[in-house]
Amino acid sequence: MSNELFASLDDTIHAKARLGIMTLLVTQGECDFTQLKKLLELSDGNLSAHLRILEESGYISVQKSFMGRRPKTTLSSTPKGREAYSAYLNQLEAILNLHKKETEQ
Amino acid sequence: MSNELFASLDDTIHAKARLGIMTLLVTQGECDFTQLKKLLELSDGNLSAHLRILEESGYISVQKSFMGRRPKTTLSSTPKGREAYSAYLNQLEAILNLHKKETEQ
Repeated sequence: MSNELFASLDDTIHAKARLGIMTLLVTQGECDFTQLKKLLELSDGNLSAHLRILEESGYISVQKSFMGRRPKTTLSSTPKGREAYSAYLNQLEAILNLHKKETEQ
Repeated sequence: MSNELFASLDDTIHAKARLGIMTLLVTQGECDFTQLKKLLELSDGNLSAHLRILEESGYISVQKSFMGRRPKTTLSSTPKGREAYSAYLNQLEAILNLHKKETEQ
């Protein structure tokens, strides 16, 4: 087995909270901050920190708006983010297949 | 989607280096320290730290012996470790399937 399979796993996505965020944004389309926070059971500070990392990598975009007087933050995945997520899932699948292949022998 | 899918991902295995170690030990049987280090391109200190975490969780066992005068450390997965690894892979598979299901709609 090549170690590249693990070395190349995208750290930006692999962190558990960010894997959760990306999965939600890719599969469900856009989410607002409050929904994400509730679904992933993260604190405001923790979720903000993970969103910043994803935004800085160009994987998500952040739109700020107002619902009446209340500020609303909407997150969505970018094409670059969806591509990276898809590549990440392919690597996970390769790990799963490796295990299946070896255990079937 | 339930957030439990992410919250319950086993942190002991999810860390990239430990996912590499567990995959090697489960699929290839026992490995010695030097092989693991080379295959995963980790430093002595870094590999030792990850092995300690896995050993403390009861996921791997460590045997120390001598090859002539040279000490040799052999690592292998325990039944508990193989069970945890298998549960972890099932969760990864659930994440993959979630994505497939949503994108096929």
